Amino acid sequence: MTTDQSTVSTYTVTGMTCGHCVSSVQEEVGGLTGVTDVAVDLPTGRVTITSAGELDAEAVRGAVREAGYEVTA
Amino acid sequence: MTTDQSTVSTYTVTGMTCGHCVSSVQEEVGGLTGVTDVAVDLPTGRVTITSAGELDAEAVRGAVREAGYEVTA
Repeated sequence: MTTDQSTVSTYTVTGMTCGHCVSSVQEEVGGLTGVTDVAVDLPTGRVTITSAGELDAEAVRGAVREAGYEVTA
Repeated sequence: MTTDQSTVSTYTVTGMTCGHCVSSVQEEVGGLTGVTDVAVDLPTGRVTITSAGELDAEAVRGAVREAGYEVTA
């Protein structure tokens, strides 16, 4: 039997105002090892990350900061 | 005698919310023939274009639209 398990984690990011901002966050977070999908809801700042395994929250924060935004929750 | 004359024209653009938006407009408008500088004031949406000669307003509107925004004045 083969199981494909993935982990979904959500963060709230402030400062994103447009589609370009969303793309920047998706690019940086999407570059983290194991990340397979990054979905962003612009109005709420909700970022839903799908990854192959447990993600390090500090790495996520760093990637978001790299994109120019902040994780608040 | 050599004279370097340039034309300055201003437009108001709506929809820009962040630095990425500004860059998009600068890139598209800056690509128009004769344009030597594009200055954008984000809070007001004021776009100041310096060009070697008179610019076609329709071409400017088209470039702004291409970037994803609208000239309103």
